[in-house]
Amino acid sequence: MGSLLSPSPLALVPFVSVAQMMTLVGRVGLDTLLKSLADQIEADFRRWPVFDKMPRVPIHSRDGVIEVMPTSDGSYYSLKYVNGHPANLARGYQTVTAFGLFARVDTGYPLLLSEMTLLTALRTAATSALAARYLASPSAKTMAIIGNGAQCEFQAVAFREIVGVETIHLFDVNPDATAKAMRNLAEVGIDARAFATREEAVARADIITTCTADKRNATILTDNLVGSGQHINAIGGDCPGKTELHRDVLLRAKIFTEFTPQSRIEGEIQQLDDDYPVTELWRLISGDAPGRETERDITVFDSVGFAIEDFAALRVIHDLVGRHPDLAEPLDLIADPDDPRDLYGMLKRALGTAASNGATD
Amino acid sequence: MGSLLSPSPLALVPFVSVAQMMTLVGRVGLDTLLKSLADQIEADFRRWPVFDKMPRVPIHSRDGVIEVMPTSDGSYYSLKYVNGHPANLARGYQTVTAFGLFARVDTGYPLLLSEMTLLTALRTAATSALAARYLASPSAKTMAIIGNGAQCEFQAVAFREIVGVETIHLFDVNPDATAKAMRNLAEVGIDARAFATREEAVARADIITTCTADKRNATILTDNLVGSGQHINAIGGDCPGKTELHRDVLLRAKIFTEFTPQSRIEGEIQQLDDDYPVTELWRLISGDAPGRETERDITVFDSVGFAIEDFAALRVIHDLVGRHPDLAEPLDLIADPDDPRDLYGMLKRALGTAASNGATD
Repeated sequence: MGSLLSPSPLALVPFVSVAQMMTLVGRVGLDTLLKSLADQIEADFRRWPVFDKMPRVPIHSRDGVIEVMPTSDGSYYSLKYVNGHPANLARGYQTVTAFGLFARVDTGYPLLLSEMTLLTALRTAATSALAARYLASPSAKTMAIIGNGAQCEFQAVAFREIVGVETIHLFDVNPDATAKAMRNLAEVGIDARAFATREEAVARADIITTCTADKRNATILTDNLVGSGQHINAIGGDCPGKTELHRDVLLRAKIFTEFTPQSRIEGEIQQLDDDYPVTELWRLISGDAPGRETERDITVFDSVGFAIEDFAALRVIHDLVGRHPDLAEPLDLIADPDDPRDLYGMLKRALGTAASNGATD
Repeated sequence: MGSLLSPSPLALVPFVSVAQMMTLVGRVGLDTLLKSLADQIEADFRRWPVFDKMPRVPIHSRDGVIEVMPTSDGSYYSLKYVNGHPANLARGYQTVTAFGLFARVDTGYPLLLSEMTLLTALRTAATSALAARYLASPSAKTMAIIGNGAQCEFQAVAFREIVGVETIHLFDVNPDATAKAMRNLAEVGIDARAFATREEAVARADIITTCTADKRNATILTDNLVGSGQHINAIGGDCPGKTELHRDVLLRAKIFTEFTPQSRIEGEIQQLDDDYPVTELWRLISGDAPGRETERDITVFDSVGFAIEDFAALRVIHDLVGRHPDLAEPLDLIADPDDPRDLYGMLKRALGTAASNGATD
């Protein structure tokens, strides 16, 4: 009788927990997974026009923001829940946590539920590196990372794998963060150097990544710090009132965005006029728009994170779970009565089962 | 060593599966749970102005719609994923499936993940009955239900418990659906009668509930079918292009909505001008606006389902899970490193563990 409480296969949604995501990274290899993510993001950016696109949907509060990011290519649908709470760090909580869903559009049934705290860190690094492969000088070998928090090492590994970066310059206002990154990067054989000032860290870098977490208009990079030919990968300025670059840096640069209507709200370009010219990265990837035109151009990837990146990431994980079924556990998420009209009947039979089980216990 | 892959308590989110939701209904009792849901929805509607409110966020496709419904009262945040795919019925899938999340606003950390296919059916019925308690004639004892699908029995039970309805008149274009509802309602002692035509079903009813599933502009109720004094609980017309009432019925009635900007898009009132006067139910509940003024008034609750109802429902379930911890299972959804800055380090240690486990296997 207990089987009446057991869901049908249709009702079960594969769930990838944090532990399983870590196991998956271990099995596939971090380098390989970052490369797969960048390849899928590139492929999905190439077919950008087929996607339903909207700025993410935020609910702001004093302490932070909770957002949902939906998109669809007409066959699949993805949704990410993500929070951003800078004050969490002081409380011993993650600043950013996330989970996501991948679903079929024709039935609306979920195909995968997954942790996305780790996966967001991975896809953010993969997107940054993909953009830099198109935007940085082809000879770029050195990257400065300003802000050595949770995103730092993922950026370093992704840029080594995807861009060919060989040396990382680290700076953080908190030396403990830099020390942590130094230890982690040393273990994977990345040549990382700690600097006492941001000036020194960025001076000889071909690429500058800013990934700080303060929720305010900060000036991580002023105009005098940026030299000709540098590519800036600005990923920490990602919500209204939170930017990292001085406005003058933007005015000297060619600016590339993900989905411009969202970037106008959240990105570095919130500091500029609403019609200031920027180029969406997908146009460059599709060959529709030029990127860097001379060795002296300053390029900025004003990244805030967009739903199509999460779509691509969930798709990669969904494919991997298909090949490694032990990396997910079935979750009884969808009520699936024998007769779809008879949801009440399913409940009633389950209650009858529970009652009779109770009686015989 | 394996404990490095085990999440900390902070990382675990209680998950209520479909089976656990059914067990919860059995333990609390369907009548009692519907009453609790109506009470919480009423309480939350009373403090309507404190909530962040927006129309739900849809992605439409040929086959249906996938929506997310976020809201927050400043302390808690809720999100529902829900699909609506009328064609699913013919494929043996549910037309509507849903799951939801309840989270803390101050940290953005999830407090509860829950199935919401069943819970949506329950909260929809509770909301309908709550509205009817305010809008139907105080002497209402008979309700017609046009459309005897998945929502039908929940409406009948909720109206008995919350409104005092004693007799249910059933009609469906598919007699099998009516027969299914007759069987289910007989078992819970509800006096239900099947009718061969909708005219006969609604003729002597004090309340008419329409809950059909076709995704088109249907005319379930024409003007000649509706008599003075009747309350219409219109819940099936809930997305653009899907309505159930003839426009003339609306023009004779006093119309009540949940969140009007969403109802203008999705509800029966999409047939009316954008400034046609309607009253939001919360105003009536708060004593700010009149409801039924004479025994001859025709009232329409143009219900499409709003995020605050899901918020209230998730809150009730969250409270119940607090008292019955066995009704949820811990889900490893949130990455929670010892040092929040060191997400990569958590991954690295896990990989080290996995590798060394592999070596000793």
